Amino acid sequence: MKDIVILGSTGSIGRKALEAVSNLSGHFRVVGLSANSNVKLLASQIRRFRPKFAALSDDSMIPSLRKGLGRCRTKLLSGTDGLKYLASLKEADAVLVAVVGSAALIPTLAAIRAGKRVALANKEALVMAGELMMSSALKYSAEIIPVDSEHSAIFQCLNGHSHNDIRNIFLTGSGGPFIDTPKNKLRAMKPRQALRHPKWKMGRKISIDSATLMNKGLEVIEAKWLFDTDIERIKVLIHPEAVIHSMVEFIDGSIKAQMGVADMYLPIRYAITYPDILPDTKHRIDPAGLGALTFRSPDMKRFPSLKLAYEAAIKGGSAPCVLNAANEEAVGAFLEGRAGFMDIPGVVEKVLSRHRINRDTGLDAILDTDRWARDEACRVIRGIKERRAL
Amino acid sequence: MKDIVILGSTGSIGRKALEAVSNLSGHFRVVGLSANSNVKLLASQIRRFRPKFAALSDDSMIPSLRKGLGRCRTKLLSGTDGLKYLASLKEADAVLVAVVGSAALIPTLAAIRAGKRVALANKEALVMAGELMMSSALKYSAEIIPVDSEHSAIFQCLNGHSHNDIRNIFLTGSGGPFIDTPKNKLRAMKPRQALRHPKWKMGRKISIDSATLMNKGLEVIEAKWLFDTDIERIKVLIHPEAVIHSMVEFIDGSIKAQMGVADMYLPIRYAITYPDILPDTKHRIDPAGLGALTFRSPDMKRFPSLKLAYEAAIKGGSAPCVLNAANEEAVGAFLEGRAGFMDIPGVVEKVLSRHRINRDTGLDAILDTDRWARDEACRVIRGIKERRAL
Repeated sequence: MKDIVILGSTGSIGRKALEAVSNLSGHFRVVGLSANSNVKLLASQIRRFRPKFAALSDDSMIPSLRKGLGRCRTKLLSGTDGLKYLASLKEADAVLVAVVGSAALIPTLAAIRAGKRVALANKEALVMAGELMMSSALKYSAEIIPVDSEHSAIFQCLNGHSHNDIRNIFLTGSGGPFIDTPKNKLRAMKPRQALRHPKWKMGRKISIDSATLMNKGLEVIEAKWLFDTDIERIKVLIHPEAVIHSMVEFIDGSIKAQMGVADMYLPIRYAITYPDILPDTKHRIDPAGLGALTFRSPDMKRFPSLKLAYEAAIKGGSAPCVLNAANEEAVGAFLEGRAGFMDIPGVVEKVLSRHRINRDTGLDAILDTDRWARDEACRVIRGIKERRAL
Repeated sequence: MKDIVILGSTGSIGRKALEAVSNLSGHFRVVGLSANSNVKLLASQIRRFRPKFAALSDDSMIPSLRKGLGRCRTKLLSGTDGLKYLASLKEADAVLVAVVGSAALIPTLAAIRAGKRVALANKEALVMAGELMMSSALKYSAEIIPVDSEHSAIFQCLNGHSHNDIRNIFLTGSGGPFIDTPKNKLRAMKPRQALRHPKWKMGRKISIDSATLMNKGLEVIEAKWLFDTDIERIKVLIHPEAVIHSMVEFIDGSIKAQMGVADMYLPIRYAITYPDILPDTKHRIDPAGLGALTFRSPDMKRFPSLKLAYEAAIKGGSAPCVLNAANEEAVGAFLEGRAGFMDIPGVVEKVLSRHRINRDTGLDAILDTDRWARDEACRVIRGIKERRAL
C-alpha cells in the first residue's frame, strides 16, 4: 500500500488520478488533496477519500470547505505554505503534481527536496526551472516520472535504456483544432473554437496551448530536462490520429513508438505504479482497426509559438521562463476576450525581445523573471487593446 | 573483444552478419564460419576474416575448399559433427545461427548446451523443438536472442519488461507479393512471381514462405517459445509498408512498436551487441517522410498456411514439427516445378491430417517425426504430379 498526495485534485488530471487510485484501491491510499478554488468538488473528494490533509489556495474559503466536510477529520491547510507542507508530507510515497501553470513550481520543488516520487503532470514548472528541478532531484534522490502523455510515452520507450542510447526524440502532437486552418483565418479564431480539441479532453489553458502549438513547444523544453537531451535532437511530429504518443530513435537507427487510447488515465497510472504495470482492460486499442497513421512536420509559419519555444530553449537561461510567463498571460487575455488568437505569439515574441537573459538558476531569480515577464506581457496586452480602441 | 561463430555464413543473413562484424571490428572477432555448399564464397570469407575454424556440410568438397585458402591456417571440419563442434567452440562468446531450415536444429542445440549466447536467425529449429530448446537454454544458462526482424522488434519492445507484462503480441508482416492477388489467381503463381518480395531481400525458402504467409505462421510458433506466451495472444497483423516490425500490447493497454529500415543488418547487430546498442547512421528512417502506415487482419482463406500453422500450434506436441517438415518439402517441390503454389498448403494439410500427435519432446522423437513428415509429404507431392499427368 502506497500513500499518495494529489495536488490539484479538482482539475481534469486530478479527477482522473482519483479515478485511477480508486480502481487501484488495494495499492494506493490518498493522504493529501489540494485544490485552487473548487470548494464543492474538493469537499466531496475529501468525504470520499478521507485524506489526512487537504489544502486550498485561498485561505478565505477554508470555512466554507470546513462546512462541507461533515464529520471528516481531515486537517485543512491553505496558501503556498499549505501546498508545500502537503508536497513534503512525511507519510507520502508519491506526489502527483496536477496543478496548472507556474503555481506548481514551489510545491513541486518541495516534493523534490523531500525526496519523493513526483508524478509530474505540470509542464510549466520544468520550463521555468528545469535546471533547478533536475539538479535538486539528483541531490535529494527524488524521482520525477512524467505524466504528460508524450513524455510518458518517451519514458516508456526508454525502459531498459539509458539516455545515451537516444539519437532523437519525436514528440508527436495531433496538431490541435486548427491543424488545417489557413493562416489568414487563424487571426479571427475565438476561444470557443480554440477550446474544441479534436482528440483530447483537457483543461482550458492547455487546450489553447494545443491550438497555438505552444503546448508542443513547452513539451520540447520539458523533454530536454526530463531526458537530458539537446534541443536539436527533440523534434515535433504532427500526427493527427493521436494514436502514437511519441517515439524515440536510438543510436542504432531503431525507433520505438508508444501508442494507446488518448486518455490521461493511462499515463497517470503508469507514473504512480512504475516500475510495475498493473492490468487495465477498459482503455484498449485494436491495431487492426486503426486505419492509417500519418505524420508530417509542423508548420512554424502558421504556428509561430512553436518556433518561439525552440528559440527560447536554444537561448536557455531565463528565456524559457519568460516564454512561459508571457504565454500564460496572453492565453488568459485571449480567454477573457482581451486579445486575439494570433496576439498570443505576438505578445510572447515582444516580451522575449525585451528580455535580457539571466543565467542565475536559483528560485528567487526565476520568480523575479516570472514576475517581470508577466508585468511586461500585461503592458503589451493593454497596448493591443488601446491600439484597437483607437 | 567478443569471439563469434557464424553458422551459415554464405547465405543472405550470414553475409549481412559479416558486414556487421567487419563494421564493428573493434568489438568482434570471427572464430568460426560454416557453409552448406558455397565453397567459393566461404573460401573468400575465410581469407578475409581468418577464423580459427571453418566447416562445410559436405565432406567431399573439403579438398576444393582447401585449395581456395592459400596460406590460411584455418582448421577445416565437415558434416553435422563439424557444425556441432563449431557451435560449441570453447572460445566462442556468441553463435549466430543463420542456417536455413531444419538443418539448424542440431547445431543450435549444441550451442545451447554449451551455454552460449545464440543469435537465432533460423525459425525452423524453434518450430520443431521449441520446448527442448527453451528448457535446455534454461538448464545450460544459454541466451537465445532472436534475429528475425519481428522477434527482434518484440524483444526490443520487451526491454525492461518481464513476459508477465505482455497482453498480446502483434506480429506484423508486409503480406508478401500476393497481398492483393485474388484467390482464383493464386493457384497459377510461379516461383519467379512468388520470389519477388516487395519489401525484403531474402533467401528463396523464406521468400516462398512469405508469399504463402507460412512465414508468419512459423513466426507465431517461434514467438510462443521465445516469449513464453499463449498462441491465443499472438496475433498477425498485415502492415504493407513494413515500417513497424512488430508490437507488444502490455497488460495496462499501452502498446509499444519497434520500427526501422527493412534490413536484416539491424536485428543482426542488435542480437550480437545486446544489451549494448552501438551507433549506426547508415540505416535510418525519417518519421516525417513515412507517409501512411496501415494495418489489417490477414485473410486466412487466401492464405490457408497461416491457419494451418495456428492449428498446429494449438495442437502442440509434434504437430508444429510436422507442419514445418511438410512445408519445407512442399516449398522445395514448388521451387523445382513439381508442385503448384496452392499445393503448398494442400500438402501440409494432408500430412498433418495423417499425423498422430506425439508429446515426446526429446531430440530423437523430433527427428523421427521430421523424417516421417518429409516422407509423407514426398508421397503426397508425387500423388499430385501423377494425378496431373493423367
